[in-house]
Amino acid sequence: MPKMLVPLAEGFEEIEAITIIDVCRRGGIDVTVAGVTEMTIKGGQGIEVAADCLLDSLDIDNFDMITLPGGLAGTLVLSESENVQSILKQMKEQGKYIGAICAAPLALHTADVLNEEFTCYPSIENQIRIDGYHHDQSTIIDGKVMTSQGVGTAIDFALKIVRELQGESSFKELKESILA
Amino acid sequence: MPKMLVPLAEGFEEIEAITIIDVCRRGGIDVTVAGVTEMTIKGGQGIEVAADCLLDSLDIDNFDMITLPGGLAGTLVLSESENVQSILKQMKEQGKYIGAICAAPLALHTADVLNEEFTCYPSIENQIRIDGYHHDQSTIIDGKVMTSQGVGTAIDFALKIVRELQGESSFKELKESILA
Repeated sequence: MPKMLVPLAEGFEEIEAITIIDVCRRGGIDVTVAGVTEMTIKGGQGIEVAADCLLDSLDIDNFDMITLPGGLAGTLVLSESENVQSILKQMKEQGKYIGAICAAPLALHTADVLNEEFTCYPSIENQIRIDGYHHDQSTIIDGKVMTSQGVGTAIDFALKIVRELQGESSFKELKESILA
Repeated sequence: MPKMLVPLAEGFEEIEAITIIDVCRRGGIDVTVAGVTEMTIKGGQGIEVAADCLLDSLDIDNFDMITLPGGLAGTLVLSESENVQSILKQMKEQGKYIGAICAAPLALHTADVLNEEFTCYPSIENQIRIDGYHHDQSTIIDGKVMTSQGVGTAIDFALKIVRELQGESSFKELKESILA
């Protein structure tokens, strides 16, 4: 069972985070929700979600993927957290999958782990780079780095993570069962 | 500011609940998340969400709409809860809006507050009635009762709630900003 880490920081975008966790668990991925600094984390729309554990309690070698939800305030914490930035670099070096949606590709850029081709929430590319940015695709997969645009593309993004980690038949079956 | 009540019971579908709360708050609706029996509620995919209050602490006269997330286990609690069933009947009598997605239209049926035309997660209609069931539309609005199909239609459903309560321009602006 592939293992995915989803770090949550105050101000995370709730639909993006929950969609990634829920769809990937439905797709047979073992998802760990880790609080960056606290065990209960408030999202950008005021919804409090409980983490499974704190980020610094984890052995990162156990994970096959890390995926960052968006939300601008949450993304800034992920960009400024030494722990998150160090985990991103470590997972990139180990050839693990890395994902980010909405504003969060900025946190990948800060860690210098983005590949050439990417997408993000429109206008965030101005803080990353125009080169390699795609405004017209919901989700971009470049090697093992997956990026997506925002709330409206979260299900597409999560389903494509399932396709990468679990294969085409899991993807198709799940897509149909959630009416996506 | 219109007020909407979202009751959460253990086993609720997380994407549906969070999408309704998040999108409607973005759309300027004052959403209260109420635990049916507890202040921290675990969804069907194991994600724990904090309620704003307990359901029995509320004055129902203050609300313009009640919306039920799906998830089969959560729906059974909503169908069996005397408090939830009584609130549904009270809001129907008062001409308030009532919404439900996925399995949750079954809880509306139990309270006898569904209107003629409805939709739900495919196969749940067998526990409601075939008459008036639409399998080919994401969201059905019949009078003040709104129903929708499931995870993949949750954003459409939430946006249509915003359109009903806040009008066309709020709907369009929000739809564009979340890339839906």
